[in-house]
Amino acid sequence: MGPKELRELARSGKNFTTSGLAKGHVQTNVVIIPKSYAFEFTLFCIRNPKPCPIIEVMDPGEFVSSNAEGSDIRTDIPEYKIFKNGKFVEYVNDISSIWRSDFVVFLLGCSFTFENELVKNGIDLPYFENKKNVPMFITSLDTEAAGNFSGKLVVTQRWVRKDKVVKAVQATSRFPNQHGTPIKIGDSEEIGINDPYKPDFGDPWIPENQKDYIPLYWACGVTPQLVLESAKIDISITHSPGKMFVTDLNDEDMAVI
Amino acid sequence: MGPKELRELARSGKNFTTSGLAKGHVQTNVVIIPKSYAFEFTLFCIRNPKPCPIIEVMDPGEFVSSNAEGSDIRTDIPEYKIFKNGKFVEYVNDISSIWRSDFVVFLLGCSFTFENELVKNGIDLPYFENKKNVPMFITSLDTEAAGNFSGKLVVTQRWVRKDKVVKAVQATSRFPNQHGTPIKIGDSEEIGINDPYKPDFGDPWIPENQKDYIPLYWACGVTPQLVLESAKIDISITHSPGKMFVTDLNDEDMAVI
Repeated sequence: MGPKELRELARSGKNFTTSGLAKGHVQTNVVIIPKSYAFEFTLFCIRNPKPCPIIEVMDPGEFVSSNAEGSDIRTDIPEYKIFKNGKFVEYVNDISSIWRSDFVVFLLGCSFTFENELVKNGIDLPYFENKKNVPMFITSLDTEAAGNFSGKLVVTQRWVRKDKVVKAVQATSRFPNQHGTPIKIGDSEEIGINDPYKPDFGDPWIPENQKDYIPLYWACGVTPQLVLESAKIDISITHSPGKMFVTDLNDEDMAVI
Repeated sequence: MGPKELRELARSGKNFTTSGLAKGHVQTNVVIIPKSYAFEFTLFCIRNPKPCPIIEVMDPGEFVSSNAEGSDIRTDIPEYKIFKNGKFVEYVNDISSIWRSDFVVFLLGCSFTFENELVKNGIDLPYFENKKNVPMFITSLDTEAAGNFSGKLVVTQRWVRKDKVVKAVQATSRFPNQHGTPIKIGDSEEIGINDPYKPDFGDPWIPENQKDYIPLYWACGVTPQLVLESAKIDISITHSPGKMFVTDLNDEDMAVI
């Protein structure tokens, strides 16, 4: 199924995870907030491009992405999360009834693009085959604040065979808009990760031959979600984890080389 | 002289062009506008990253760049241009007396970084040695609008020996935040440039052995200046051409590979 068909499937009310679907097309994290917070949140993204790489910011009230023909952001995501005053209140599969003309939509890069690239380069990602989630950790590193938006950097963890570390860096270098290069190679404790087998979110990943593997950490799109919660803005809407917005963009459109 | 000393020289009232100074450090285009326009202008930059690569957007009222220790954007540029309602009104060397707490400062990438890189890669830029300006053309290509901000793409032109075109593309690929790769290789008329020897701004460049050379066009930082003028906002301030803000960032900090 292509990106347009997947958006139509979501629009019809189907609830599904988008991981692995419409291969080769860019999927994005989504944040929707009122215009009064939009400039500050944009500054936050600009200052923290690794966790919050901007793919598109729509005009206030606009719900058609210029990167997804005939799309409607109010219906084309399989599941949304609604937050009020920073607290999660409910999952819904359509936000048309609560849409406001002052809502601003942010499409932020997600890791699916570079994960495909890692796999192509011979780096195993067992959580894919095992239908598990990538391990995620809240680090001790501060993001660069913008107004009310601040918080710790969240990272994903992938164990890479030591002879594949160079390939992992090269492959992800091509995609600065999809979290880009790792922010840390090994030395988990230096970024506040005391037990690399106990993630804050997602599933633990324990490599079989530990001495041959090293954990690489990449900035994660959960970072802006936590930052949004702690900013306690009156209303914000995001996609539900793993249920992303599928654009018409090709992965290769995002590559810098 | 280092970046800090150059900023201090500008602060002391000296008027000078910054081209070729503090080699290896990132210089930037500067746009200062009231906060009421800042979100829309940020969207314009995000949508047009090649002519308007964002290096930093400061908080409203902030005049110290986080990329330039001890800096003061009100005094540290050798010369400023003041625009009122889109019309140029005067050159000044200090904007402290007209500074407002709602001013937002944009630092945008400039071509100096990639020009150094081209020279290192054996690509001649005779306008440097001849103390001339790079030729600039207003193309027929539209930028992607954001609210009131819209206009044509302005490009710089550099004649590159045909056997050096690959190198020119590779060298500038590393710097997407300094205008990045060329937007056009040859075929000037396809982007509305009917006479490649008659630039709209800067000095003409006529290569000696024309059949061995091909014109390459890069997105240019003059684009946002024209866009700002046509938006006719009540007040805006920019650096004066060639008299840039010198940051502490190293050119190599900007490289994606």
